[in-house]
Amino acid sequence: MLYLIGLGLGDPTDVTVKGLEIIKKCEHVYLEAYTSILSAGPEELSKFYGKELVVADREMVEQGADDILEKAKVTDVAFLVVGDPFGATTHTDLVLRASSLNIPFQVVHNASILNAVGACGLQLYSFGETVSIPYWTETWEPDSFFDKICENKKRGLHTLCLLDIKVKEPNLESMMRGKVKYDPPRFMTVAQAADQLVKIIDRKPDNDTLLRTDTVVGVARIGSPTQKIVSCTLENLVEMDLGPPLHSLVICGKMHPLELDFLKSFAS
Amino acid sequence: MLYLIGLGLGDPTDVTVKGLEIIKKCEHVYLEAYTSILSAGPEELSKFYGKELVVADREMVEQGADDILEKAKVTDVAFLVVGDPFGATTHTDLVLRASSLNIPFQVVHNASILNAVGACGLQLYSFGETVSIPYWTETWEPDSFFDKICENKKRGLHTLCLLDIKVKEPNLESMMRGKVKYDPPRFMTVAQAADQLVKIIDRKPDNDTLLRTDTVVGVARIGSPTQKIVSCTLENLVEMDLGPPLHSLVICGKMHPLELDFLKSFAS
Repeated sequence: MLYLIGLGLGDPTDVTVKGLEIIKKCEHVYLEAYTSILSAGPEELSKFYGKELVVADREMVEQGADDILEKAKVTDVAFLVVGDPFGATTHTDLVLRASSLNIPFQVVHNASILNAVGACGLQLYSFGETVSIPYWTETWEPDSFFDKICENKKRGLHTLCLLDIKVKEPNLESMMRGKVKYDPPRFMTVAQAADQLVKIIDRKPDNDTLLRTDTVVGVARIGSPTQKIVSCTLENLVEMDLGPPLHSLVICGKMHPLELDFLKSFAS
Repeated sequence: MLYLIGLGLGDPTDVTVKGLEIIKKCEHVYLEAYTSILSAGPEELSKFYGKELVVADREMVEQGADDILEKAKVTDVAFLVVGDPFGATTHTDLVLRASSLNIPFQVVHNASILNAVGACGLQLYSFGETVSIPYWTETWEPDSFFDKICENKKRGLHTLCLLDIKVKEPNLESMMRGKVKYDPPRFMTVAQAADQLVKIIDRKPDNDTLLRTDTVVGVARIGSPTQKIVSCTLENLVEMDLGPPLHSLVICGKMHPLELDFLKSFAS
């Protein structure tokens, strides 16, 4: 049996009682560690569960899925995912492969940023399409997310922007020298995301949908004791420091009086 | 201290470890019981927590909030919500009132249908605005959700439709006789929702966005052992019986090959 278990927002105790019971009985426990991060490290989790964990990077999950599935044919295997198991395409793919091999699977859901972002007081029903904001490089500055934000905003909808995560990225320089070395992990901050958005706005003189002075919300470490939420203008967010990862950004659409009241308590 | 604790999708064991620890230490525990339902009854929950529960209906939460907040000023009070605490406006309002009275509060997030709907294989990032489909009455047949679904569909986005719940609704006939009696609880099925949508389509000859033959997904009791997911045309869903509540409906937008593959496993 293959169990996909959501770990929720970051603390070991964010796992559900059901999830914890299953983890304890599984023979193999994998921890997916590249689409998000936990504030707790694998050692802390392992201790909390009383189980050894295999930390699975992208390569292991995408190329080593057969091995995980082979084990699930004969014994109980847990695959742990930060947030909810269906937050990333890779996990959907794993379920699909299990299903085509007739391996029974069960999903244990949990909170993810997609619903926990409600903590900022904006109504979840009034969010439009979610976008991802990637890190820009020297030669590649994609901005397709900008149009999606504007489409949402024109309809009065808020936009949740998921910010880029770079974990175990091969270092290009050492690759060219034939060595495999990894860059240190990077997590985009709301300030970096706001900075890219402001740059796009400055390049589009005809845009009158998303402005530098529009209200946005920066959220950091949602659900943790150090959670931070800040509401300000997009251009002011560029200067804000919300501390350690994970960060997410919300571009506000049309706001209900109750939403405005709530946001006021986070005004900066 | 006021704790708002999400209970997740329906089973007592869907509570998080953190949530359970807090419930056990609270002096007063309220269970919100009108924006959603648990498959488990309050008695089963109370036994699982080892705590007495006060079942709070809409009236109690909206009119009796002061009493809950007074208690939270001097002791630990838990307010339990099916799904995630920020799934309904009432709970946002409760947090806002606590905040204005300087009562400290903490939120324990959990899965809600808004992310657990990913179990049908449609990517959560490709959902547009969420809509609510209300029960029609003899004299009132609102259809504003139809335009929202079409707006999403035009942009290639899926729509999650939350279906109406009627819990503790005063019976009109007895009200006119001066008595307070309540109708039995009702939960809209995907078949009823599909039926209303088909009727709207038949009334709008100019609509070419949402058709009777479009692919939709009906989901029931997501996250429970009896979970059921069915993918078929909108008109065929009218005849489908997915069993007991809760049901939700998804209107598909443009589908990625991986999404199509996944949906095939639920084809009916």
